[in-house]
Amino acid sequence: MRLVRFMAEGCTGYGVYREDGVYPVSWEPYDYLVDTVEIVEPGSVTFLSPVVPSKIICVGLNYSDHAEELGMEVPAEPVLFMKGSNTVLDPGGVVLYPEQSGRVDYEGELAVVMGSETRSVSEGEALSHVLGYTCGLDMTARDLQARDGQWTRAKNFDTFCPLGPWVETEVDPSDLEITCRRNGEVVQSSRTSRMVFAVPALVSFISNVMTLYSGDIIMTGTPPGVGEVSRGDRLEVTIEGIGALECSIEGSAWT
Amino acid sequence: MRLVRFMAEGCTGYGVYREDGVYPVSWEPYDYLVDTVEIVEPGSVTFLSPVVPSKIICVGLNYSDHAEELGMEVPAEPVLFMKGSNTVLDPGGVVLYPEQSGRVDYEGELAVVMGSETRSVSEGEALSHVLGYTCGLDMTARDLQARDGQWTRAKNFDTFCPLGPWVETEVDPSDLEITCRRNGEVVQSSRTSRMVFAVPALVSFISNVMTLYSGDIIMTGTPPGVGEVSRGDRLEVTIEGIGALECSIEGSAWT
Repeated sequence: MRLVRFMAEGCTGYGVYREDGVYPVSWEPYDYLVDTVEIVEPGSVTFLSPVVPSKIICVGLNYSDHAEELGMEVPAEPVLFMKGSNTVLDPGGVVLYPEQSGRVDYEGELAVVMGSETRSVSEGEALSHVLGYTCGLDMTARDLQARDGQWTRAKNFDTFCPLGPWVETEVDPSDLEITCRRNGEVVQSSRTSRMVFAVPALVSFISNVMTLYSGDIIMTGTPPGVGEVSRGDRLEVTIEGIGALECSIEGSAWT
Repeated sequence: MRLVRFMAEGCTGYGVYREDGVYPVSWEPYDYLVDTVEIVEPGSVTFLSPVVPSKIICVGLNYSDHAEELGMEVPAEPVLFMKGSNTVLDPGGVVLYPEQSGRVDYEGELAVVMGSETRSVSEGEALSHVLGYTCGLDMTARDLQARDGQWTRAKNFDTFCPLGPWVETEVDPSDLEITCRRNGEVVQSSRTSRMVFAVPALVSFISNVMTLYSGDIIMTGTPPGVGEVSRGDRLEVTIEGIGALECSIEGSAWT
């Protein structure tokens, strides 16, 4: 099942995406999934980020070959950092290149979407708390990341977390092909089986620190091949069994 | 004016706190402040954290003598990190000491409460976007902070951000006495005038990275005197012109 958030006729809603259109569901799909017979024609719909998370927990250095390309060691435990909901960008949206940075990188990632309030679960229980998966980009001002030490500023400019196009609820996250293209050229190509900490381990680890809420996102880290974007570039993240997330890069109107 | 969030008869609401009771206001006080003549008796009210922020942006090392006590340099720009809404604790609540840590510290702080959606404002405009101020504690698992490099885990255990007791809307934040007591003994005592980056500079700097929303919190950093807590301890943060925030420390039922 593909769960979407959309805008039509000036209103936003949640729905199930099928070939013939969007079937609206009442309120947030992960809490009260009630299918309807109403259909919104695909052409009259703008797709939004499939959830509005209370928090986005990101995992650094979770593919060993990406750690290598950054000249950093694979950590013994997941390294966590956060992005705020201000960073969320709808599919097809525009990433604003901040004036403060001279080097912004793409990082294509598998995004886990939580389905229920989750606290202190084991690896064995973890997946039963997951609603599904979507594609994400962890945009990063690499120069500020190096300068600040803490990664918060570098990761939290508005629009720095494109998410979408939907939450795919019926996919096994353990071994999916993940590809990132810049202007049509493949720049990242890997499989989720190469993660240092797999999805159940991440959900368990994080939920033993902080309560995860329905709609919260875990960004599972990026494979090797990260690189710089320029204003005017187009990015596309494709994950097997999920779909494709696109965005473009433009200069910011504000600093 | 003192703005509170409260629970009475099983329902939560926002209100204005006066000596004779709580005057409920419609919906969120920072957007639609409509005073009423209804009164809820103080005795029948449980005070909650005065806001539920979409994000909490914290500033590290913002008192030069605190940087010194940690053996760290005062940064040239504010160092930012984040706490999620899962960390928020109501006034009078219980901070859960996580099993994962062997060293949890208190850090008493002035908390800025944003009043409107704020993006890219100058220092001169900054305070007009602030709703008011409250007391906060940035609880920190000091051992995990040192081990992880990134501070996210150390700062984000549930209950690690006590906030309250209310939002004081009529106080000048530039030179307030701030005191933190552990079991009645003064352990931190300073003035907000000793901040490296004052409130207008912080609001401006942060809003040029990320959009701040109504109810978002900026934790302005802690003065010197940070130290360890033990299970059973009581903490109290008092800020001149605002009030006092209390909490206690207990062992966590979960890891």
